[in-house]
Amino acid sequence: MKTLQVALGDRSYPIYIGQNLLNEPQLLIQHIQADSVCIVTNTTVAPLYLEDVVSTLKDQGLQCETVILPDGESFKTLTVMNQIFDGLLSAKLSRQVTIIALGGGVIGDMAGFAAACYQRGVPFIQIPTTLLSQVDSSVGGKTAVNHALGKNMIGAFYQPQCVIADTATLNTLDDRQLASGLAEVIKYGLINDPDFFTWIEDNISGLVERDPTLLAEAIARSCQDKADVVAQDEREQGVRALLNLGHTFGHAIETGLGYGTYLHGEAIAVGMVMAADLSCRQGWIKKTDVERIKALLSAAHLPVSVEGDLSSEDFMQLMAVDKKVQAGVIRLVLLKGIGQAILSDDYDRDSLAQTLAEFTQ
Amino acid sequence: MKTLQVALGDRSYPIYIGQNLLNEPQLLIQHIQADSVCIVTNTTVAPLYLEDVVSTLKDQGLQCETVILPDGESFKTLTVMNQIFDGLLSAKLSRQVTIIALGGGVIGDMAGFAAACYQRGVPFIQIPTTLLSQVDSSVGGKTAVNHALGKNMIGAFYQPQCVIADTATLNTLDDRQLASGLAEVIKYGLINDPDFFTWIEDNISGLVERDPTLLAEAIARSCQDKADVVAQDEREQGVRALLNLGHTFGHAIETGLGYGTYLHGEAIAVGMVMAADLSCRQGWIKKTDVERIKALLSAAHLPVSVEGDLSSEDFMQLMAVDKKVQAGVIRLVLLKGIGQAILSDDYDRDSLAQTLAEFTQ
Repeated sequence: MKTLQVALGDRSYPIYIGQNLLNEPQLLIQHIQADSVCIVTNTTVAPLYLEDVVSTLKDQGLQCETVILPDGESFKTLTVMNQIFDGLLSAKLSRQVTIIALGGGVIGDMAGFAAACYQRGVPFIQIPTTLLSQVDSSVGGKTAVNHALGKNMIGAFYQPQCVIADTATLNTLDDRQLASGLAEVIKYGLINDPDFFTWIEDNISGLVERDPTLLAEAIARSCQDKADVVAQDEREQGVRALLNLGHTFGHAIETGLGYGTYLHGEAIAVGMVMAADLSCRQGWIKKTDVERIKALLSAAHLPVSVEGDLSSEDFMQLMAVDKKVQAGVIRLVLLKGIGQAILSDDYDRDSLAQTLAEFTQ
Repeated sequence: MKTLQVALGDRSYPIYIGQNLLNEPQLLIQHIQADSVCIVTNTTVAPLYLEDVVSTLKDQGLQCETVILPDGESFKTLTVMNQIFDGLLSAKLSRQVTIIALGGGVIGDMAGFAAACYQRGVPFIQIPTTLLSQVDSSVGGKTAVNHALGKNMIGAFYQPQCVIADTATLNTLDDRQLASGLAEVIKYGLINDPDFFTWIEDNISGLVERDPTLLAEAIARSCQDKADVVAQDEREQGVRALLNLGHTFGHAIETGLGYGTYLHGEAIAVGMVMAADLSCRQGWIKKTDVERIKALLSAAHLPVSVEGDLSSEDFMQLMAVDKKVQAGVIRLVLLKGIGQAILSDDYDRDSLAQTLAEFTQ
């Protein structure tokens, strides 16, 4: 087992990464402060892991309630989140309850936001069961739900007590979900870790084939890269914005085509290609860099173009409500090289228009 | 004009109290950091003050959007709060927007919670227009919405940039709303300020008749008392819980009879009498103290008993979901004297049953 520490002062917490960690109750138990927990999961994950986790907790004499939500990004709404509050209040759980998120990024985001809000804040533990959530949403404390007019528009910064990333849970992922997680892994290489990018290129077949050692290595390196950035800038006043590489484009794709058409990582993969395309039009990176990025994403079984009905104008409108907009200008994360992302509003507007035209109908 | 400072480190903020402060644009403008604002108000307050505030802001060249919610505690829900997000997102307002709450406690709680959540947190200014919100919800950063199973169960601790309490707005309050605010004023005397309690007794007729000098004095003293407590204990780990005198009983009344049947301050008035009754049964305060409290509340035109269909058993059930419950025990704020509140779970369960029986059908 690898243990990383996310350094955030009195909000610091550990991330445990390894095979079969759900079989080690003590990992979980040591982070529960009172006598009740509420596990939030979904209809896909519940049949696989819920019973084991519940019996582990009940064996410790804890009151253990469960809330099972429908599965999918389209259910990441205030209305569905209210089901968590229904469950907590029906069971009369006090502000000492610990909320446990058991599932992917959607469950982590909703359960985390519910924990931030329930009685104005209760402790929270993440057990991410997808590659995407293990490398991304479990690190950094961003929680949120979507709004019809924009993704992740309603949320909180809220840190968990700990994160338990059991690589054994990845065996039950379907191929698209695995690829979606690899998109975020590749993102960390692209942002500021060129050696990691090369390592992923060298090992992409093994990762796609779910070699557990390679996956654990990729998760640990991704979490470490992200934790380093978050420790510098918890509330995204500066450098943390780089983690949004591909996200302004990607969120527009997700919102524009309807949540769930593209998986989050798939949309981010296309978004990263669009960011690379624009960076290339600016003359900041070479055409061969763009090709190298597309080749790696393709090898990870990820899309590199938009398949769907989205006009250039709609795309621009959708980008304009993104959180990265400041004083009416869309700030984008772009590339000055592989492993060298920058946040910039100093790009040519015509180049952006050309990129949008290239990637839309 | 009086200015109080709420001391909370880098979340410190000023409270301005005085007559006709809405006519002094600079007070407001100096706390707005970017070029857009969104005013959240309700159908009662909008016709009275919205136009003036909007034109003040537009005169400064600010983009100024408005969201007008239905009026009343029964609308303090996640669903109605979503209308604020609809307004913010339809107008494409970025995370630099300042949200301004213009109205009573319900508007302050909802707009504040929306500000805490919109894009994971945007700046927020309170312009409370009721006596209750000027002395209570504008100090201390508690924001929330209600859930069908409990009051203020979903929320955040979130501090405003400033609070502007214009006593001229109290002239448009109806008598019940004014009395509801006086309940909280009396509460501060009861908790830890016996001299203030005596001052209120001496001046209750003038307060009821809305003498502006007396009201400004009462607001400033109440805010100071509350600010002192909040500065010691922002997140209610200890002494801040004393501010909930009357609230565990009062919330049960509000939830049990349906939000809106009793105004918040009215329910708190009855709750304080119940807390005094239980304290007296414990032998902690004298019968004459209880009578003195009831006499002052009555002089303020507040109820001192529950009028409505609420059984002792229902009351107990409703109290059991309150946020003050710890390890299954209902901790209550009780009195060891006038001006001497304590948080206690060391009360006789039979005495509580007797108090509930006395005050219910």
